[in-house]
Amino acid sequence: MLVGALYTIKSITGVIRPCITSVLPKENGGIGLILDVGINADCKPDVLNQFASLGSLYATHVHKLKNPRIALLNIGEEEGKGNLLCQAAYNLMKDSEEYNFIGNIEGRDLFNDRADVIVCDGFTGNVVLKQAEAFYALTKKRGITDEYFDRFNYENYGGTPILGVNGSVIIGHGISNAKAIMNMILHTADVIDAKLSSKIKKAFQA
Amino acid sequence: MLVGALYTIKSITGVIRPCITSVLPKENGGIGLILDVGINADCKPDVLNQFASLGSLYATHVHKLKNPRIALLNIGEEEGKGNLLCQAAYNLMKDSEEYNFIGNIEGRDLFNDRADVIVCDGFTGNVVLKQAEAFYALTKKRGITDEYFDRFNYENYGGTPILGVNGSVIIGHGISNAKAIMNMILHTADVIDAKLSSKIKKAFQA
Repeated sequence: MLVGALYTIKSITGVIRPCITSVLPKENGGIGLILDVGINADCKPDVLNQFASLGSLYATHVHKLKNPRIALLNIGEEEGKGNLLCQAAYNLMKDSEEYNFIGNIEGRDLFNDRADVIVCDGFTGNVVLKQAEAFYALTKKRGITDEYFDRFNYENYGGTPILGVNGSVIIGHGISNAKAIMNMILHTADVIDAKLSSKIKKAFQA
Repeated sequence: MLVGALYTIKSITGVIRPCITSVLPKENGGIGLILDVGINADCKPDVLNQFASLGSLYATHVHKLKNPRIALLNIGEEEGKGNLLCQAAYNLMKDSEEYNFIGNIEGRDLFNDRADVIVCDGFTGNVVLKQAEAFYALTKKRGITDEYFDRFNYENYGGTPILGVNGSVIIGHGISNAKAIMNMILHTADVIDAKLSSKIKKAFQA
């Protein structure tokens, strides 16, 4: 799907690597977004910096979050913490005028309300996403019914746009059922109504 | 603590980077181990290969697991998947005669019984560990009492040895309470009784 999108409609000029997102349900009732979650296993610092811009535009225009708080997923809170990728990305992100960078967050902050958009390489994001799915599956297996944990069901969200391509392309879970596909279609309508692709194009031409 | 251990008692000859571990409770009642969980944010493939050996020795001699199954944490199951680090590490690990490599596993497998020891760089492992802690905290906050999820409480395990140093050094959570410290002391006794440091030394001299 990604390869098809890239060959057919191409990336938006200036976007180094398109990416995909996932929803992280917050315990306070809101949602967070994490990106990339799997199509860019190896990322350079400037790519993470662009993910921050793409995520900020998506959160603002589609999820209607005002001035979304953008954080870098790291293994310590202070500047200078983390692997070489995060150290370099932090330096690019900290003075950004394109989005509202709030600094590093850690794995323990994935479901609280510190950030609206969490930026990471696609390897880390994919592990985070699948671990969250595993936890949700375990709550079901253990017979736990809880309105917060039930929000981890991917069927509620349906899919994610590929951010940074010249058009509206939404990808969903390979095992999508009727409810997931319904929500994917509804989310596609939101992405189109928001003119997300045009807004990203405009931002990257500026 | 790590710096102190490295300066005072040094790494075992041949060990490129010592590492630390965490317990992952399995839903079937057993435990898995994951390493590194935070002291090596950037790893080379040969370092991951050594983590596999260190984890296998720890699982065998201290946790008394027979011929422990070693897996590489990745974002796809097939050989060739993942970031450049995992692709190269897989090539080193697949023919190992020092441990029982079973291939790649994904984030969804962290709590099932596919592997006994899960190898990853310290950045990924730290995010996994803190995400698991966040989930456990959320179950408590939601008033969920479940004997499986209760096994995620770090107090049950107390601490982890620093694998690969010339002696028995155990580190614990900065917020350790009495129960955690009791279990840390008991685990220290297990590590000493198993002569883990000597066994690692012998393996790395072979």
